[in-house]
Amino acid sequence: MSERFAAGELERFIAGVLTREGLPAGDAADVARLMVAADRTGFDAHGIFRLPDYLKRIRAGGINRTPKIAIVRETASVALVDGDNGMGHLAVERAARTAIRKASETGIGWAGTRNGNHAGAASVYAAMPLAHGMIGIYGAVGGGNQMPPWGGTDLLLSTNPLAAAIPAGNGTPVVMDFATTVASMGRIRTVAQRGEAMPEGWMVARDGTPLTDPARAPEGLLLPMGGYKGYALALVIGLLAGTLNGAAMGGDLIDYIADNDRAANTGQFICALDPAAFGDPAAIGSAVDRVAGEMRGSATMPGVDSVLVPGDGRAARLADRAANGIPIPDALRATLDGIAEETEVAPLGS
Amino acid sequence: MSERFAAGELERFIAGVLTREGLPAGDAADVARLMVAADRTGFDAHGIFRLPDYLKRIRAGGINRTPKIAIVRETASVALVDGDNGMGHLAVERAARTAIRKASETGIGWAGTRNGNHAGAASVYAAMPLAHGMIGIYGAVGGGNQMPPWGGTDLLLSTNPLAAAIPAGNGTPVVMDFATTVASMGRIRTVAQRGEAMPEGWMVARDGTPLTDPARAPEGLLLPMGGYKGYALALVIGLLAGTLNGAAMGGDLIDYIADNDRAANTGQFICALDPAAFGDPAAIGSAVDRVAGEMRGSATMPGVDSVLVPGDGRAARLADRAANGIPIPDALRATLDGIAEETEVAPLGS
Repeated sequence: MSERFAAGELERFIAGVLTREGLPAGDAADVARLMVAADRTGFDAHGIFRLPDYLKRIRAGGINRTPKIAIVRETASVALVDGDNGMGHLAVERAARTAIRKASETGIGWAGTRNGNHAGAASVYAAMPLAHGMIGIYGAVGGGNQMPPWGGTDLLLSTNPLAAAIPAGNGTPVVMDFATTVASMGRIRTVAQRGEAMPEGWMVARDGTPLTDPARAPEGLLLPMGGYKGYALALVIGLLAGTLNGAAMGGDLIDYIADNDRAANTGQFICALDPAAFGDPAAIGSAVDRVAGEMRGSATMPGVDSVLVPGDGRAARLADRAANGIPIPDALRATLDGIAEETEVAPLGS
Repeated sequence: MSERFAAGELERFIAGVLTREGLPAGDAADVARLMVAADRTGFDAHGIFRLPDYLKRIRAGGINRTPKIAIVRETASVALVDGDNGMGHLAVERAARTAIRKASETGIGWAGTRNGNHAGAASVYAAMPLAHGMIGIYGAVGGGNQMPPWGGTDLLLSTNPLAAAIPAGNGTPVVMDFATTVASMGRIRTVAQRGEAMPEGWMVARDGTPLTDPARAPEGLLLPMGGYKGYALALVIGLLAGTLNGAAMGGDLIDYIADNDRAANTGQFICALDPAAFGDPAAIGSAVDRVAGEMRGSATMPGVDSVLVPGDGRAARLADRAANGIPIPDALRATLDGIAEETEVAPLGS
């Protein structure tokens, strides 16, 4: 069961809690807005659901409450943002704004982050350039190593997500957002919270046999999407988002949830690309509409109602949640009520 | 069975044939070099194997023998290259050189192509920035629609490949190159040429049942790698490589092999990213070596000898073929001997 709350109410609660924990009011409001942006668009495993983990890290000293986020290297079209171990959302939003500014000047901007932290949903950042008529591409090193290289058993890779957002003309923008593992740990945790089993193919045990009990996830190995191709993609994203920026990747990546008190040195990248550099943006937008419309208009396989374009589900959830609020499952509600009591912030719906 | 030939001998043959077909000697030599770059690195389905298809297109008037390739739009970090319907390799190499030049000036360069053609192996172009110490990222619209959108049956997507190359320090560069379908049509054609069956999971019939006879490939649907995630990736790559550049994508994409006499308007993109914009390139290279070494050093699953990093197989094939020549299967050899007779160019090994 769940109850729905307006996005603004979730933001009020998160910002109140983070301020109480010692974050400056402006930073707390920014983080709340960026967390709830995930909930607004249906990425439930990456929004307010993560607040308890973030609080544990803040309280254990694993996150700097008052970071000085700065651009530490810069060329005409590239920047490297140092997050000073603050909340990851702040560094990535700074990177996104920087990439957009550079793209408006040179056609493309790329910004990497280091000394950051978990920043929530990939598509929140990939979609930021949309408001400027631009394409966004985002990648990140995930929050801990849960996947081995293809054929191996050492946990050296995370769920390293990839997201992209492409503006359309009159239609819904194309927004892709996926973990390079078959399933993300966030998704497994929501399955666990609902008391369900994982389908075969999400995880295996160290001997290669299927593992479907989400409670046993800590001893299992996540599998890459598409076999060895997903391994390659996870590795490349990790090198671009982590290694290139001087952020953690491979053996030096910690588990941001289990390892509360150490700096995670999380890395991300965001690229903004301006369609105006290629031609008339309106004509390009119309062409995107045409291609997307062809996909939606496809005849379907037996048993399939309709064909979707990546981003269609997001747009539907965005509209539903703007009108009807964001559903908070009872188990999460109880956790948040506990946080309300600890922090003396008025609980959701009060 | 196969016989091996030196790369230079393959280049001599291809350049001779293309010159005979009316390409300027310089363009013919460039195309030969770029085609054989695929054979040198083991991408056998994208090198000299494609010569018969290219010849059919040239002879049918589907390719402009004497293109005027030009940069038609340009910003500080972005360029759009018009291939004037010449051989695709020429436009993409021009794009790669342009992206590298811009990256050396601004940290990153992105170049798209339109009015191009099939350009061979993705990793040939993604790897070009390596010689300048840079990262390369490449995507393309494939040579015909063989995949439906997820859940659909209309053929609206191609194998849209993605490739990336990341320089290492002392070690082998990381080079990823894959079709976003489970299998590429090139791979299916080499399987067909060897008289083998396809594994289940590569293709399905229109009713969703498995299709394993490569001779029936024209009536089948390719499946995306990783299910709906691969569909999203194929679509996004197609929008970036095709639609953004004013090139074909979706309903207006022709089959470059079957539809010989019409311009294909193939699109590709290449991005070059300079590690020097992020920090000391030597330190970044060492960090890439460290991460790659961790992958190779992983304990293995039962039955697996060793863990590879993407690019390791390429490096091994590159070394083997430089020392021992490039294997040409007898069936391909017979085809090439036929071309030699038609064009009065001395056959391979003469």
